[in-house]
Amino acid sequence: MEYQKLFIKINNGLQEFHDLGQVADYIPELGKVNPNKFGVHLTTVDKQHFGFGDANEKFSIQSISKVLALTLAYTLEDENLFKRVGVEPSGTPFNSLFQLEADNGIPRNPFINAGAIVISDVLVSHLKNPKEDFIQFVQQVAENSEISFCERIVASEKSCGFRNMALANLMKSFGNIKNDIDEVMDFYFNLCSIEMTCQELSKTFLFLANHGVCPFTNTIILTPSKTKRINSIMQSCGFYDEAGEFSFKVGLPGKSGVGGGIVAIHPEKYSIAVWSPKLNKKGNSNKGIEFLERFTSETKISIF
Amino acid sequence: MEYQKLFIKINNGLQEFHDLGQVADYIPELGKVNPNKFGVHLTTVDKQHFGFGDANEKFSIQSISKVLALTLAYTLEDENLFKRVGVEPSGTPFNSLFQLEADNGIPRNPFINAGAIVISDVLVSHLKNPKEDFIQFVQQVAENSEISFCERIVASEKSCGFRNMALANLMKSFGNIKNDIDEVMDFYFNLCSIEMTCQELSKTFLFLANHGVCPFTNTIILTPSKTKRINSIMQSCGFYDEAGEFSFKVGLPGKSGVGGGIVAIHPEKYSIAVWSPKLNKKGNSNKGIEFLERFTSETKISIF
Amino acid sequence: MEYQKLFIKINNGLQEFHDLGQVADYIPELGKVNPNKFGVHLTTVDKQHFGFGDANEKFSIQSISKVLALTLAYTLEDENLFKRVGVEPSGTPFNSLFQLEADNGIPRNPFINAGAIVISDVLVSHLKNPKEDFIQFVQQVAENSEISFCERIVASEKSCGFRNMALANLMKSFGNIKNDIDEVMDFYFNLCSIEMTCQELSKTFLFLANHGVCPFTNTIILTPSKTKRINSIMQSCGFYDEAGEFSFKVGLPGKSGVGGGIVAIHPEKYSIAVWSPKLNKKGNSNKGIEFLERFTSETKISIF
Amino acid sequence: MEYQKLFIKINNGLQEFHDLGQVADYIPELGKVNPNKFGVHLTTVDKQHFGFGDANEKFSIQSISKVLALTLAYTLEDENLFKRVGVEPSGTPFNSLFQLEADNGIPRNPFINAGAIVISDVLVSHLKNPKEDFIQFVQQVAENSEISFCERIVASEKSCGFRNMALANLMKSFGNIKNDIDEVMDFYFNLCSIEMTCQELSKTFLFLANHGVCPFTNTIILTPSKTKRINSIMQSCGFYDEAGEFSFKVGLPGKSGVGGGIVAIHPEKYSIAVWSPKLNKKGNSNKGIEFLERFTSETKISIF
Repeated sequence: MEYQKLFIKINNGLQEFHDLGQVADYIPELGKVNPNKFGVHLTTVDKQHFGFGDANEKFSIQSISKVLALTLAYTLEDENLFKRVGVEPSGTPFNSLFQLEADNGIPRNPFINAGAIVISDVLVSHLKNPKEDFIQFVQQVAENSEISFCERIVASEKSCGFRNMALANLMKSFGNIKNDIDEVMDFYFNLCSIEMTCQELSKTFLFLANHGVCPFTNTIILTPSKTKRINSIMQSCGFYDEAGEFSFKVGLPGKSGVGGGIVAIHPEKYSIAVWSPKLNKKGNSNKGIEFLERFTSETKISIF
Repeated sequence: MEYQKLFIKINNGLQEFHDLGQVADYIPELGKVNPNKFGVHLTTVDKQHFGFGDANEKFSIQSISKVLALTLAYTLEDENLFKRVGVEPSGTPFNSLFQLEADNGIPRNPFINAGAIVISDVLVSHLKNPKEDFIQFVQQVAENSEISFCERIVASEKSCGFRNMALANLMKSFGNIKNDIDEVMDFYFNLCSIEMTCQELSKTFLFLANHGVCPFTNTIILTPSKTKRINSIMQSCGFYDEAGEFSFKVGLPGKSGVGGGIVAIHPEKYSIAVWSPKLNKKGNSNKGIEFLERFTSETKISIF
Repeated sequence: MEYQKLFIKINNGLQEFHDLGQVADYIPELGKVNPNKFGVHLTTVDKQHFGFGDANEKFSIQSISKVLALTLAYTLEDENLFKRVGVEPSGTPFNSLFQLEADNGIPRNPFINAGAIVISDVLVSHLKNPKEDFIQFVQQVAENSEISFCERIVASEKSCGFRNMALANLMKSFGNIKNDIDEVMDFYFNLCSIEMTCQELSKTFLFLANHGVCPFTNTIILTPSKTKRINSIMQSCGFYDEAGEFSFKVGLPGKSGVGGGIVAIHPEKYSIAVWSPKLNKKGNSNKGIEFLERFTSETKISIF
Repeated sequence: MEYQKLFIKINNGLQEFHDLGQVADYIPELGKVNPNKFGVHLTTVDKQHFGFGDANEKFSIQSISKVLALTLAYTLEDENLFKRVGVEPSGTPFNSLFQLEADNGIPRNPFINAGAIVISDVLVSHLKNPKEDFIQFVQQVAENSEISFCERIVASEKSCGFRNMALANLMKSFGNIKNDIDEVMDFYFNLCSIEMTCQELSKTFLFLANHGVCPFTNTIILTPSKTKRINSIMQSCGFYDEAGEFSFKVGLPGKSGVGGGIVAIHPEKYSIAVWSPKLNKKGNSNKGIEFLERFTSETKISIF
């Protein structure tokens, strides 16, 4: 297969790539991962699969799951959702309190931590059993009932989640958190603990390349219009304060996580997931971005 | 023609659109324009033209010309250019000194004022007769030798350009302006004074929808890779701190100016220019954005 | 007595003073106070008393008690204390997260909320029964065993203390809170709930005008050097971002609270307490500052 | 004399003080000074003189002269002056654009660069021959017709004064500079170029310790009330973002300059000038502050 060969070619080229990134260690549990893991998986809208390396090994997808939380919240609240969270890039690190204070407790977008905490609050308001209902939604989109939260990661994040608690309290002081902080934060820390393989991740996100419909099950997850809008938010805000750089180099909407995962979408074509745990200074997978830049350069296609 | 009909349909729908925007008045000369002007022009990569309303009336394209300055500077300096200016959205208003100070005089992107001043400095360094050479470049891209600077606008901008002078001095203090400030700012104020009609604007920017080649003359303006990257910067940064919102609503890379103009690019399809002088609070054409949102909703195609 | 006559004279002059201030209402319980209360009490280092108006009515001294917390913490940690909290004015509102983030969790001074939370943490570390031990210390300085925390105020502050919780969590994320956040914040909210009359307040703070010694009991509270330094911190930082203005107008070191109280010190002469619940926009007693400005103008003496 | 002996004693103690400061080098001319110079001079309100070390050598007093500019502007505009400049400490470095932008072009106080530029603008508005008239005023206060601007320093400051030009342009954009920027900045750069010896400096500032009257000539420079207020501003704002620290350690109102000079006032007692060119990280004389801290500790008197 062409993609398969391309993965091998790019990987060969990356032998000489000196990865100066560092594995995330601010969450103790994440620091334990093998830094040399590397996996890629691409799934096309016509259901073809192309994997490479450690594509079938589970890793913590971390912030990538914020796209799924946004997806569910968007179906529940429609455009009202954006009264409580913006769609603008933040221009500052992902956990900045400064901007949140200046903006009166309205986070810039749903992918910075503050924004995902607001989305968590929305889901806690709507769902009967928030954590159970949400993981069922993810299992449905993933067409995989094994997807689950990771208790160890939850515990690890809680042990050092003081800055996230600060964000939640600040937003509560502005009235932008409606539920009990501890319940919202328990949901949030669980949200960030989901584990998937590259293959699962790529398949799960394929609906965003297919007008909101899972190609495997024909389930409608989102309307075409909302699908475009989530892709747009990923393009603008998916990589913290490196979103412009990713768009400049790779040219696809995508989302990263501090576990070293990245998922990117080529509308009407494919979804691709990469995993390499060492992060650059902006908190995005160093080798993952490099791989994707070479990939879209070689295929000579991007959304631009 | 289909686009022509669509323009009429959308325009009819906009009869009931209550435009709360305000004409830019911080530059005295801009305040004199008729606020009810409205023009649209779309040019396809296969050279078809579709105009509507005041599409053949000149207006001050203002910051839109920053894309052309970036285009020329990018061909002259290649990727080195991005050592002196970033590609990240700013997340703050277009003329903020705060961020520039925090970033040690490196502007976030080439479209905020500070970034365009750096680009002006680059062009002043490279060009023998900077203003003459640049306007010739624009005339070539536009395939129109009548395009010119507007002296009245230049004088008007200089009379109140203290904040831009502050930006230039701050960057000079960080060593990121190489030439004499007055020469650089004279170039910058001229750059912002260019006038075009919607038709001219749409035609001029068509190379960005066509892999860097002017379809009318087959002149290569940029490489395909650089073309994609400029489109990406427009997507991320083309609308000041409303870039995410434009991307969310319209889904195309584009660039606005405080004269009320917007140009947007659908790669491999068309370039579209809209003009409506009343601006929203973020400094972008209020009705222009509304029109484009309805246009991409109706055509059901965007890059996402 | 001269001071007594002066109080009457100034009060007469203030009949025409139109007090545009507002009673603090962000803490529900504080909003219930009678806004027209007005009391003054001055105690000299040679033990003379001069009262006026509602000088014997209890009110919530709020942040004024932070000086007492600092006093005790300073005796326990000496100059080491200032590794965890600065002595610089903040230049920003009293509960700003922005500056705290920029300063890596080290509060500018012990009188902004973040600084008083660090002082609370220090006391929680040192004291066996923090709340009991601290109120005993206050009772000793006040020579009054009736001084106590106010449960209603504590409950009221806790019900809306999300921003303070945000400050505490942010500092914990930087490692500048050592104890459990809930224990520290319980202490902090109690600290802010102490009630005194103007007479009690004036008498309690007299040691700061007397080289650290209570004139009534000859108890040494602080060394002369530390006493000067606390006076200096009050001068620089005692009135949030209005410290310069107070120093400019009144010329004495002092401390205010959102309950409308102010205490000011004239070293080697007297301690004066004023109470008027309506606050100006900076959160300091509006009429209280006016009274003190007229008082030091009339007496023609200040520390400058 | 007691002070003379004390200077010697403190100086002996400072033999073992390891001065880690650096001579200011951002103005080329300042970088040429001998870093080991050290002078002290104290003048009492009863006209006694006490000098030590290089007390009779000229140095660039730099920002210290801002107190004299404020003094003259205050007599010309009375309290109206404070509509255009505040009296609050800035909490940020002395040349910050960020705060100035947030405060709409109103500088926090007359001693940060932006504030002194506004004061310069006020003097340019009032004085017929601004530079000549101002230096005459300084000569009168100093009772010394030799005091003058230093052309070399002016030229040196202008060659690298881009940040100050940025401040002036930013304030002009907010309407807080009334005159031509180049004229105002020429005045400002001259203001900062004045040279004095420690003896001259100490004598010149003595009126601030003597209710506004020069003890030597009995000339009234300021009213007693305005004198107190200038002392208060020095206390709050005289040492950039180290004002609280100086007040904490030394306990006297004072003003520093990047030439390594410091002048401090003990109201009704004396004026003391110190000169040591090596600066700490906040831009204040490192050894100078240490000397003054030991001096007020030894004399056991400060305003607190």
